[in-house]
Amino acid sequence: MSNTWGTHLHLSIFGESHGNGIGMVLDGVEPGCELDFAAITSQMQRRAPGGVLSTSRKEADEIEWISGVRNGKTISSPICALIRNTNTRSEDYLSVLDWPRPSHADYTAYVKYNGHSDQAGGGHFSGRLTAPLVAAGEICRQAMRKYFDLSVGSHLLALSDYRENAWDIPEASTLEACRLEEIPCKDPEKVRELILNAKSEGNSIGGIVETAVCGFPAGLGDPFFDSLESRLSHLLFSVPAVKGVAFGAAEEFASLKGSEANDVFAKRDGQVVTMTNRNGGIEGGISNGMPIVFRTIIKPTASIALPQTSLNMKTMEEEERVIKGRHDPCIVLRAIPVLEAVSMIALYDALLSDPFVFARLTGKKEV
Amino acid sequence: MSNTWGTHLHLSIFGESHGNGIGMVLDGVEPGCELDFAAITSQMQRRAPGGVLSTSRKEADEIEWISGVRNGKTISSPICALIRNTNTRSEDYLSVLDWPRPSHADYTAYVKYNGHSDQAGGGHFSGRLTAPLVAAGEICRQAMRKYFDLSVGSHLLALSDYRENAWDIPEASTLEACRLEEIPCKDPEKVRELILNAKSEGNSIGGIVETAVCGFPAGLGDPFFDSLESRLSHLLFSVPAVKGVAFGAAEEFASLKGSEANDVFAKRDGQVVTMTNRNGGIEGGISNGMPIVFRTIIKPTASIALPQTSLNMKTMEEEERVIKGRHDPCIVLRAIPVLEAVSMIALYDALLSDPFVFARLTGKKEV
Amino acid sequence: MSNTWGTHLHLSIFGESHGNGIGMVLDGVEPGCELDFAAITSQMQRRAPGGVLSTSRKEADEIEWISGVRNGKTISSPICALIRNTNTRSEDYLSVLDWPRPSHADYTAYVKYNGHSDQAGGGHFSGRLTAPLVAAGEICRQAMRKYFDLSVGSHLLALSDYRENAWDIPEASTLEACRLEEIPCKDPEKVRELILNAKSEGNSIGGIVETAVCGFPAGLGDPFFDSLESRLSHLLFSVPAVKGVAFGAAEEFASLKGSEANDVFAKRDGQVVTMTNRNGGIEGGISNGMPIVFRTIIKPTASIALPQTSLNMKTMEEEERVIKGRHDPCIVLRAIPVLEAVSMIALYDALLSDPFVFARLTGKKEV
Amino acid sequence: MSNTWGTHLHLSIFGESHGNGIGMVLDGVEPGCELDFAAITSQMQRRAPGGVLSTSRKEADEIEWISGVRNGKTISSPICALIRNTNTRSEDYLSVLDWPRPSHADYTAYVKYNGHSDQAGGGHFSGRLTAPLVAAGEICRQAMRKYFDLSVGSHLLALSDYRENAWDIPEASTLEACRLEEIPCKDPEKVRELILNAKSEGNSIGGIVETAVCGFPAGLGDPFFDSLESRLSHLLFSVPAVKGVAFGAAEEFASLKGSEANDVFAKRDGQVVTMTNRNGGIEGGISNGMPIVFRTIIKPTASIALPQTSLNMKTMEEEERVIKGRHDPCIVLRAIPVLEAVSMIALYDALLSDPFVFARLTGKKEV
Repeated sequence: MSNTWGTHLHLSIFGESHGNGIGMVLDGVEPGCELDFAAITSQMQRRAPGGVLSTSRKEADEIEWISGVRNGKTISSPICALIRNTNTRSEDYLSVLDWPRPSHADYTAYVKYNGHSDQAGGGHFSGRLTAPLVAAGEICRQAMRKYFDLSVGSHLLALSDYRENAWDIPEASTLEACRLEEIPCKDPEKVRELILNAKSEGNSIGGIVETAVCGFPAGLGDPFFDSLESRLSHLLFSVPAVKGVAFGAAEEFASLKGSEANDVFAKRDGQVVTMTNRNGGIEGGISNGMPIVFRTIIKPTASIALPQTSLNMKTMEEEERVIKGRHDPCIVLRAIPVLEAVSMIALYDALLSDPFVFARLTGKKEV
Repeated sequence: MSNTWGTHLHLSIFGESHGNGIGMVLDGVEPGCELDFAAITSQMQRRAPGGVLSTSRKEADEIEWISGVRNGKTISSPICALIRNTNTRSEDYLSVLDWPRPSHADYTAYVKYNGHSDQAGGGHFSGRLTAPLVAAGEICRQAMRKYFDLSVGSHLLALSDYRENAWDIPEASTLEACRLEEIPCKDPEKVRELILNAKSEGNSIGGIVETAVCGFPAGLGDPFFDSLESRLSHLLFSVPAVKGVAFGAAEEFASLKGSEANDVFAKRDGQVVTMTNRNGGIEGGISNGMPIVFRTIIKPTASIALPQTSLNMKTMEEEERVIKGRHDPCIVLRAIPVLEAVSMIALYDALLSDPFVFARLTGKKEV
Repeated sequence: MSNTWGTHLHLSIFGESHGNGIGMVLDGVEPGCELDFAAITSQMQRRAPGGVLSTSRKEADEIEWISGVRNGKTISSPICALIRNTNTRSEDYLSVLDWPRPSHADYTAYVKYNGHSDQAGGGHFSGRLTAPLVAAGEICRQAMRKYFDLSVGSHLLALSDYRENAWDIPEASTLEACRLEEIPCKDPEKVRELILNAKSEGNSIGGIVETAVCGFPAGLGDPFFDSLESRLSHLLFSVPAVKGVAFGAAEEFASLKGSEANDVFAKRDGQVVTMTNRNGGIEGGISNGMPIVFRTIIKPTASIALPQTSLNMKTMEEEERVIKGRHDPCIVLRAIPVLEAVSMIALYDALLSDPFVFARLTGKKEV
Repeated sequence: MSNTWGTHLHLSIFGESHGNGIGMVLDGVEPGCELDFAAITSQMQRRAPGGVLSTSRKEADEIEWISGVRNGKTISSPICALIRNTNTRSEDYLSVLDWPRPSHADYTAYVKYNGHSDQAGGGHFSGRLTAPLVAAGEICRQAMRKYFDLSVGSHLLALSDYRENAWDIPEASTLEACRLEEIPCKDPEKVRELILNAKSEGNSIGGIVETAVCGFPAGLGDPFFDSLESRLSHLLFSVPAVKGVAFGAAEEFASLKGSEANDVFAKRDGQVVTMTNRNGGIEGGISNGMPIVFRTIIKPTASIALPQTSLNMKTMEEEERVIKGRHDPCIVLRAIPVLEAVSMIALYDALLSDPFVFARLTGKKEV
């Protein structure tokens, strides 16, 4: 269970890496929204496998819209998007069915489901399930753009031994620019090299991504227990390989004094702003109108091409094996559009689940 | 809304810092559980205000059990715990009603609730609301101890410029010992000094806490979207001042290679274990039987005694003021029992929301 | 579990008939609503025990507002209302603890909770728990009256061998008038006599109530699975003794042809109306702007003063006993304000859980 | 929104009558359940259109299992079932797009979705959406049969001017026999004639169905607010055309005295039973082990072939038209497998959402 998420929205995802297909059902999007399918495709391509920096498994990830959309618009009923699996090589996984791959869900799924889950390619736990999340997130982003200018973008804070500084207060234009980069950071060549090195070693590397959203209005999110931080982290931790989420100044809060950490209110151009944004746009769990900023820690891909030991679940003996299959030396870059997508889902849900704020924000426009 | 949490459990909290009282309703606890009220009181005292290291507001935080408990046992109906507010000095807050305190929820609540919320002492956003969370968490811990030996404890990783190492694989005895310390770290005197310094300066400091749970069984938690990481972080980010949550190796994942980050399975004393615990006991969102380990970033208390500028919401002019009220120079120590409590709530909920695993775990015992 | 209800609203109730108190937590009501406490009291009194037609247990049912209300207004945080139990005579129930009372929850609670529930006076299953529902419903009614004129009222369709006709299309004034009657029906003397007869026999009687709501706008409710019928019936069946719910023409649908059952659309006074209201104001699960009309079947009070047989749970032998305690010969009249109250909760929740319709309905007013 | 249902289970449905397809996602079914696909098909056929007594629209209603099933077994991930629409004639509906059909959802959907919903063939409101419910219900029934012998069946209480008596205490064999009948009642010829008469008149008729479930264990369901009555009625009222639900003695409760309505406990063959079953197997919202019995009122099909007046939404003038399309003169018979299916969903959900009762019931068997 638990494959459904949302307060106003209901998002369900389904599928397994090596089954007939994967997809999602998204319920609660405003009826009459015009969808930009090209933009959905372009987000899907940011995440899609294939390319020298990622797995060699190629999937078209073409969406069939089963329901909820007619003549390019949402029509109030749940949106079902189906993506067929076309390029599965389950035989690669035969050897590991009785040998749980280290740091994968094989062992925990085995215990939880009493041996009944299908783990080929990670089964339902596969990163492939994030493809429908990207489609859902892009729909949410487009639905919100009807009401306010909204920008989302990310850059690398860390990747293996590469480091760069956190944003101060990011501008929308910076975010939009990052969103177009294959490797959004100050030294993409260095990062490319790190990834290719890991690949050639049969190893993998992790990193930290900083994501920001500009243009999300103040007054959304809820105290106890649905703060924006709770909602965002809940979805972010659903993305495979994510192991940490922090907002604003993140771990730097541990070194700051209150007088340095507090964001002072001021008025600029007729708007209430804070002069710094250490809280990452969220105070008391509620948006304050400043950019929403968060960092996501992504562990190195668990699948590596080097020999590893694990337990043979039949003999209960330790055995060394090499995992076959086509894997990513670094999942961080492909994760970025997913992190951005789920943040859009979380924010659209926060917007729609407060009818009072929503009515004030939209009351003057034709809804 | 959103003051209710849980999948099987339903936990609601209510109250304001300066209203008649605060409390919680906890529904779904196993009927017939014998409660150790002394242990509840002792956890409440760990969090309670008063003492040289915290605010001078003294509250007995005595619980009246309105329902759900009879003769020391749970009786299946919702447990309602009521705590009266006894020591409120709302006049301290009169001066800030029109001047949102920096890094508090005053401004965001003002926008969200259109000026209708009660912000004296933080109102419903007050850290005081964590008192009922501690009671709820301790009940959940006791209810789980019927089924398995469970230990929870925390230590400081960082506090201002103090640092110490993360645990390797913590033992239950270490956790139990930490739980009894006022300042659980290797150099409590240093930490005490840092807090008293901040206090004397009228300033505040933040920190990072590492918490671990030993004894929680494998197979609990759910993929997409209710991973243990999602459930734990959702509740942890409900605790005021929490700005980051990371599991296992946390930000160190950014520097590790896959071959270093992966936890290799082995058999020790007839048990499946991993030789390292970089994943913090959670793989694919599901517990693997190893200690569950997470770090929580806590920002410096927003209330400081130094002059700060903010906007006068009537004149919309910037004004410098000093916040009155009785505040904590460091909320980190008082937060520890809250972090431990909410982890107990999240884990008990994960246990009860998988009937198949629950039945296998408890089937042989009299439930 | 399950003592919480709502999509946008979260309503939790707690308490037992013979415990310290009962109450509710209601989250999600619009901040800044002025509450008419006299009207709440007057609804509570309609339901309150005492009086020649009901139980002789007298309870003041005075509400202490623990949170969520300040200076007569809602302040955005959850509203907690506490009602103390003052007049408990648990000794009356000692004799039945091991002898489940026929048609009560004693046996089913015994099985479900493995003997651990507290059944004195019905415990948590007691009709007493409907008192906080009445308070919650009246708050919801008042909150909706800010947006539209709304009237709710009920009359008896049947009670023992009394019968009267269903409403055709009820007017608001009829509903308001019914709401002021002790016995809302065409022949109150006949009904009074039937109740007093049942009382003098030590027996009890049931009935059918027809309730209507005028003024609720079109476009609220949801298909699959949150139709207005689903939402209303879900709450109505939570009220003890309710065994049936039907909308509009109810069982008469079985005899009608489609050409008779269909409600034809027309325009009257610039409004879209239907010329009949066989669907009870709900088509496709969504309100159509006509009065919402439903019938509720209420079984005879299970507690009677006549000897009955049941099983002694210790000896597992059948035993005849007489139930002590103070009971209602007919719960139908006291149920009416509860049915009306829960309908207000269901409708307010339906209103707030559709942000698009809510924004269109309220966009022009200051929210 | 609201197209998702369940406490432990999460059932989502999607699709429109004249879109690409319809289907469901069912999450939470026990992993490792062997599915009997022939039985699923046979239930689908009971509901399927075609045949002299129903609409002439023929749909194969063949299910493609997208996910959640492998080698005939459930594998823990959500079960997605997709049914293609193959025989749509949307042109039949062009004439009514601006003329809301009486007693359909056309007008209410128009208001709710601001003109953006797709109403061809009823769109998402179509009875066609019940096909995936039948598949989901049959899966739930099969999953429960692993634990206990469970039988479900229905008969007609009323249909136009046909009437027959309610069951006393039904036996499993009676239910199983009814489930195999095309027209489960004492005089099927009479009923067939009534339906064919309505058809030849271009009119439609409604009815009342009594459904029972034998073998469901005692102790399931919850007080306030998730009684079995609440859960069952919530789902039953999701089925298009359902306008009433009552349990056990239903409206006869209005005429009975408490001494007649109460079900007395006794011991028979070592089992606790009640000597009558007026409560329909549910006391205090919880199953008591007796057959669960409920009646469902189904209105005459709204689509009839006779001329009707409605409003032209463009001119706002009344116009008489005849609805084209292929419709059922009586939907009652085709509704029966749907009512049975949703009762299975509700009961399986009630079973899985009480981990304590589930563990006691299944603890001795291998789960």
